[in-house]
Amino acid sequence: MSQASEQIKQKILIVGAGFGGLTAASALAKKGNVEITVIDRHSYQLFSPLLYQVATGGLPEDDIAYPVRAAIPGVEFIRGEVIKVSFQANNIRLEDGRVLYFDQLVFAVGSMGTTFGLPGVEENALQMKSLHEARAIRNRLLRTYEDVETGAKPKEALWVVVVGGGPTGVEISGAVAELQKSMHREFPKIAENASVTLVEAGPRLLPSFGEKSSGRAKGDLEHLGVQVKVDSAVDRMYPSDVHLKSGEVLPAGTIIWAAGVAAPAEWNDLGETDRSNRLVVSDTLRLQSNVWVVGDVAHVAAEGKPPLPMVASVAMQQGRYVAASIEKILGGQELKPFTYKDKGQMATIGRRRAVVELPNGPAMHGTLAWLSWLGLHVFYLAGGRNRVSVIADWFWNYISWGIGPKRPVID
Amino acid sequence: MSQASEQIKQKILIVGAGFGGLTAASALAKKGNVEITVIDRHSYQLFSPLLYQVATGGLPEDDIAYPVRAAIPGVEFIRGEVIKVSFQANNIRLEDGRVLYFDQLVFAVGSMGTTFGLPGVEENALQMKSLHEARAIRNRLLRTYEDVETGAKPKEALWVVVVGGGPTGVEISGAVAELQKSMHREFPKIAENASVTLVEAGPRLLPSFGEKSSGRAKGDLEHLGVQVKVDSAVDRMYPSDVHLKSGEVLPAGTIIWAAGVAAPAEWNDLGETDRSNRLVVSDTLRLQSNVWVVGDVAHVAAEGKPPLPMVASVAMQQGRYVAASIEKILGGQELKPFTYKDKGQMATIGRRRAVVELPNGPAMHGTLAWLSWLGLHVFYLAGGRNRVSVIADWFWNYISWGIGPKRPVID
Repeated sequence: MSQASEQIKQKILIVGAGFGGLTAASALAKKGNVEITVIDRHSYQLFSPLLYQVATGGLPEDDIAYPVRAAIPGVEFIRGEVIKVSFQANNIRLEDGRVLYFDQLVFAVGSMGTTFGLPGVEENALQMKSLHEARAIRNRLLRTYEDVETGAKPKEALWVVVVGGGPTGVEISGAVAELQKSMHREFPKIAENASVTLVEAGPRLLPSFGEKSSGRAKGDLEHLGVQVKVDSAVDRMYPSDVHLKSGEVLPAGTIIWAAGVAAPAEWNDLGETDRSNRLVVSDTLRLQSNVWVVGDVAHVAAEGKPPLPMVASVAMQQGRYVAASIEKILGGQELKPFTYKDKGQMATIGRRRAVVELPNGPAMHGTLAWLSWLGLHVFYLAGGRNRVSVIADWFWNYISWGIGPKRPVID
Repeated sequence: MSQASEQIKQKILIVGAGFGGLTAASALAKKGNVEITVIDRHSYQLFSPLLYQVATGGLPEDDIAYPVRAAIPGVEFIRGEVIKVSFQANNIRLEDGRVLYFDQLVFAVGSMGTTFGLPGVEENALQMKSLHEARAIRNRLLRTYEDVETGAKPKEALWVVVVGGGPTGVEISGAVAELQKSMHREFPKIAENASVTLVEAGPRLLPSFGEKSSGRAKGDLEHLGVQVKVDSAVDRMYPSDVHLKSGEVLPAGTIIWAAGVAAPAEWNDLGETDRSNRLVVSDTLRLQSNVWVVGDVAHVAAEGKPPLPMVASVAMQQGRYVAASIEKILGGQELKPFTYKDKGQMATIGRRRAVVELPNGPAMHGTLAWLSWLGLHVFYLAGGRNRVSVIADWFWNYISWGIGPKRPVID
């Protein structure tokens, strides 16, 4: 038996099978000198940037969910819910009682929707961070047409209010407007009653983009028929009304909440957190020498700068950084601080327009921007089958728009 | 105003959006001189011959379900549950209270699984006649691997028993065996414990086929690893056992019931029924002059002959016959009796073999038969998008077999 095979491999536990966790797993697996286990409560990776497409019937669920078990050769997957992390004992405990030891822990549990404690939001608005929630929106949107047609619900049930003018709110508003337009064929008697209103607390849409992009997004959405209301903070919600701080009341059959995202509060006792429950980590993304935090749940302390945005490209760069850093540590090398390379940002508006901003390039708008958006999203989808399938589905929806797009069934 | 446009159009109500109902609707719509309404409790058409593929993770649900609203130009669709049919008042009543008048009624409500009242079947076996049931089987099959791996269930939970040696039982057994084989990659520690047993009460599989085909089906299934037990009638079931009349007990983690199909008993009072609850109709498929019955729910009286099988091709031929007959009646013409043109039968065994019997041709087996099976099923799928998608999904599963097929996610 050779020296190498007798050596005990370091155990790396990765909690969370999102962009951060899986990027780390796959980078570590290439080295081959460690034992890697990924734990998640779902056995699939969710491509959340396209959740709004599932919510509006543009893609079937399977297209944006990729089974994670055995997806990365050499990486073990465990489906389970982590309920306790012990830095002292170097282990984690699962809900079913199992205890898993680690030499290195990569904590990448992601984020979820948050309502900022606004009254009535939790009870009355639909959120959009999980496959389950996207399905609920889709079923509600489609079923409402049937309920209005049979008289079970009034026409006002077809009014949709989206709260939050960030990329998610902009994308879902545009997609809902197009869904409503396409419904004229299936429900000719009632479809004209549908409407969608996008509500943003600040003075403009897409606040992280430049002003020109914000203006283009607003114009494009209005062209699709979306009513855009900026400077309109929500005060509270009821089952069929959104009340603004101004006193204005917006009646709504469906309320979609796209205004706030935060890390899960249950991990607050692992260390210092910011107001979004993100764990404040060192510039090497650590809470202690063998505990790494990546993605939406990590707040990298940097004086005078806002924290990094909670987006996939940050999580993936951090995942790769941590994998490389673990290798360095095992090899006895020094670590350099993590630096984020800004890759720009993009948001799509309906089926043919987008706004794209590259770090040092020009801002792009319109069809060309949309094609870049499309190419990039397909490129990053996990799994060849999903790529083929998303392209086929989009292509089909595109060419069949006039004659009635494919719709997922409600069951 | 011309004479023609003043004429009041005949109202045709079609109950059931299956193969029979939709074929009738689409044939009638081409004539254009009648008002057609289709009613179903689901807003999609289900391509039930491929349900076993959904049950075993081979196809996503959306591939075999096609939204029926606005699918046929000129045909209105109502989603609803019919609770009463009145031949005297010429109307039907829906669960939500609506009453719909008809001049001509086409009754095409299809069939469902039946347990023949065997003790324990209803409670312990999974059936496979609806999308919901197929999803339940799929989730159970996949989730059991996780439960066995975590120790929540014993290894015997991976034993599957399929009851019923007709085409459905043969197809699901083969697909389960292949699913189990493909699981070795994702669950290397436990997958070898899985097994599938097919139980048939009669002396051979596929009793409606010739003996040679039965033998081939048995051989092909055994080659895939299925244990085939003929002459094995089920006596009763418990949560983890199937008891045969011989006294033998088969332990099972999952029991799939593919042994019996019958029309819904709730329509027994509409007329004389056979022991499968099928309505006995005249040779023109009628219960009275303006009430037509097609598909699985129709028993065409014919002396000395067994009733027609409950398959799609019978339903489609009957749907076309009724559409033509309604036209004849409106034009004052005489009706000829319905005659069934036998198109043969086929069953697939795993991903590469099938048995096919044509009415006056040779029986086919093996890969060529499988290709015919595949071509015919894709041809009959409703909707171009579904055809494209099924071909893409199958092609992908086929080429990726060794490296791990695409699996729908459990949520």
